[in-house]
Amino acid sequence: MTFRATVLTIFPDMFPGPLGLSLAGKALAAGTWSLDTIDIRDFGIGVHRQVDDTPAGGGPGMVMKADVLARAIDSIGADSRPRLLMSPRGRPLTQQRVIDLSAGPGAVILCGRFEGVDERLIEARGLEEVSIGDYVLSGGEIAALVLLDACVRLLPGVMGKAVSAEEESFAQGLLEYPHYTRPQVFEGRPIPEILTSGDHAKVAAWRRSEAERLTKIRRPDLWSQRPAENRPEFPRKKGSTDG
Amino acid sequence: MTFRATVLTIFPDMFPGPLGLSLAGKALAAGTWSLDTIDIRDFGIGVHRQVDDTPAGGGPGMVMKADVLARAIDSIGADSRPRLLMSPRGRPLTQQRVIDLSAGPGAVILCGRFEGVDERLIEARGLEEVSIGDYVLSGGEIAALVLLDACVRLLPGVMGKAVSAEEESFAQGLLEYPHYTRPQVFEGRPIPEILTSGDHAKVAAWRRSEAERLTKIRRPDLWSQRPAENRPEFPRKKGSTDG
Repeated sequence: MTFRATVLTIFPDMFPGPLGLSLAGKALAAGTWSLDTIDIRDFGIGVHRQVDDTPAGGGPGMVMKADVLARAIDSIGADSRPRLLMSPRGRPLTQQRVIDLSAGPGAVILCGRFEGVDERLIEARGLEEVSIGDYVLSGGEIAALVLLDACVRLLPGVMGKAVSAEEESFAQGLLEYPHYTRPQVFEGRPIPEILTSGDHAKVAAWRRSEAERLTKIRRPDLWSQRPAENRPEFPRKKGSTDG
Repeated sequence: MTFRATVLTIFPDMFPGPLGLSLAGKALAAGTWSLDTIDIRDFGIGVHRQVDDTPAGGGPGMVMKADVLARAIDSIGADSRPRLLMSPRGRPLTQQRVIDLSAGPGAVILCGRFEGVDERLIEARGLEEVSIGDYVLSGGEIAALVLLDACVRLLPGVMGKAVSAEEESFAQGLLEYPHYTRPQVFEGRPIPEILTSGDHAKVAAWRRSEAERLTKIRRPDLWSQRPAENRPEFPRKKGSTDG
């Protein structure tokens, strides 16, 4: 099954962009996934192909028109793919959501611009608002590239070894452990001895412990979200509430 | 002062990519900001310009070499710009960090690939790890595009009106209120009456209340981070109307 991405944008030239290179580009060329763009301006109004208008109630900027966007979305036809709107108001993207999306048929992705999209379009077409982080971009296009890159690398055959994905950040609710490679000593700093000991069990334990240490220090929010049975310092107690 | 971005990558062709179009592209052409890329492979080892090696301790994938990356970074010379490494292990990017970066001289951005970067390079060159979200990308390049897009749009003269930035998501710890524009009725759905009342104070109060409502429902994590004096359900001692 091919993962099919359809992106609605007023900047179709931004695609595939960086996704045309590297492993994602090879997978695109190989047909592992497909990428279509729909130019929203093709559904714009009048000789200027207008896609936006001034906000009801006043204020700066412009709002993307519900009627224009509805025609652009409806041009895709009946489809089982989730319809996403990249927006800082959306649900924060997680690796679990990426995994779920990459196991599905693909996605229809609307890229917002200007001040945003008419709220009635979001409701009427059942768009799921997705945020890639708590910052504001000039539009949804680069956010769509992020979402697609994250999904495409998980498609079968794109990454070298599937096991890579199982040890990386967030795979078990942890940040990834530190990496080292040759040279053995870099500017007076040696590789931690345990990693060159040849003792696979000790290496695995050290990596686990480092991943836990980093997560606790850097991301107490992630750490506290982990199920208690994965946190060794919390004794398992039936019925105890997570504090 | 020009905002200067220098990106270290094994995929220099990914830049400026989408940042060459739209407002960011116009600002790049106008010299409001600059973008240089350094091809890490130019500092690679041997005829194959090797930049990575197998991980110490074993496991899948490859690790970017500290010695190669150090030479690439050091080729930039003395510099007051922050040195960032795009990495899911980093501190989550926030709009406040974007605002701070955009007010500074620019950034040196290292794009990690493969399993990651030798930890000793991060320590020895004082790299600040920055994460754009809790998901994994195929490399740091698209994350760098995100960071730069967020910064560049805040540079003086890039956005039409500075006031736009003050009302958008995260500007006051809130998600943005819903937007509407013509037509007055879309598929049976009217624009909320208050927005077409012409009463500016009521419009402002409605928008504030909607922004608060959306933030509470969608992002209780953001809502709970706001200072108590900004949360109306916490009675203020001074000027309280409760009697």
